[in-house]
Amino acid sequence: MIDNIFDFIGGNHGQWKILKMEPIVGETLKQAPYLKIVKSSTVKSSEGVWSLKGLISNIRYTEKEEKEKLISIQADLGRPEATKAALIPIKKSEVWWTLAQDERRKIFEAQSNHTKTGLKYLPAIARKLYHCRDIGEPFDFITFFEYAPSDSEAFEELVYSLRKTEEWKYVDREIDIRLIRE
Amino acid sequence: MIDNIFDFIGGNHGQWKILKMEPIVGETLKQAPYLKIVKSSTVKSSEGVWSLKGLISNIRYTEKEEKEKLISIQADLGRPEATKAALIPIKKSEVWWTLAQDERRKIFEAQSNHTKTGLKYLPAIARKLYHCRDIGEPFDFITFFEYAPSDSEAFEELVYSLRKTEEWKYVDREIDIRLIRE
Repeated sequence: MIDNIFDFIGGNHGQWKILKMEPIVGETLKQAPYLKIVKSSTVKSSEGVWSLKGLISNIRYTEKEEKEKLISIQADLGRPEATKAALIPIKKSEVWWTLAQDERRKIFEAQSNHTKTGLKYLPAIARKLYHCRDIGEPFDFITFFEYAPSDSEAFEELVYSLRKTEEWKYVDREIDIRLIRE
Repeated sequence: MIDNIFDFIGGNHGQWKILKMEPIVGETLKQAPYLKIVKSSTVKSSEGVWSLKGLISNIRYTEKEEKEKLISIQADLGRPEATKAALIPIKKSEVWWTLAQDERRKIFEAQSNHTKTGLKYLPAIARKLYHCRDIGEPFDFITFFEYAPSDSEAFEELVYSLRKTEEWKYVDREIDIRLIRE
């Protein structure tokens, strides 16, 4: 087991019941009734109907001032009141990945306000990013969001805002999986 | 097999004969006579005396103008005249990894001229970077350099220049492994 690597397994059991799986762009995943999240390793899991591997890494675009703001207000996963969640795997295009660091940062923040938008919904919407590109996975990122039922509308606003940005033009595949804590 | 993942195996055979293994900072690796480089997967190899896994990823600091310069003059690995090589695994400190993107970029280029220094020695010194952080490996990066015997002095200059930079103050472990093509 490696501390920063997790498997997200769609199957017959898990901590989260899957309410809805909606393909936003590109191919969907097979329907599954539950999502299990477990600490893992680099070895591909064969459990469940599907399994996605993601790893926690260092921050790639966030600058010092943004980082300090985020740290001062963000909430951890696992708050008892946060009984709703969303698992959103996305894949970006090859065009995105061949851009230089400054070109990606410019689209990410100057044009798309990715961090600024996320900050608006903190601490209500807790968020954790897992990287999957480079390890043979079908997606580039998995973002896991957790929130209380009373913040459902705020969450819809957040995903709506992000999806209409310049950055999202580089998203080739996205599935929106909604969850409720069992 | 995953196209962007490679194993670097120190053992009894391989494409490269190990001439010297010198720990620059921190613990060394066990002595081995040969280095084998093979396309791999996320599964840890048990071959050899030691094995390091590294993956090719997107660029993390290089900006558009630098990227264009690099592409216009860099050489690929595998040139017949490039019979000398160096495998240099390094690990950076936790302090480095908790810095924000703009703080790391500033140290990397504004203070340490990492890209500018590399550019000075192109196309003579071919260079490939493999990432190992986040996948349970003991190092964060492996850099593989290849050059002709007539460029040996230039290569010594390059590693000497990099090691005295501000960036290198964040290097916690480094081993310099020198190779000759078998």
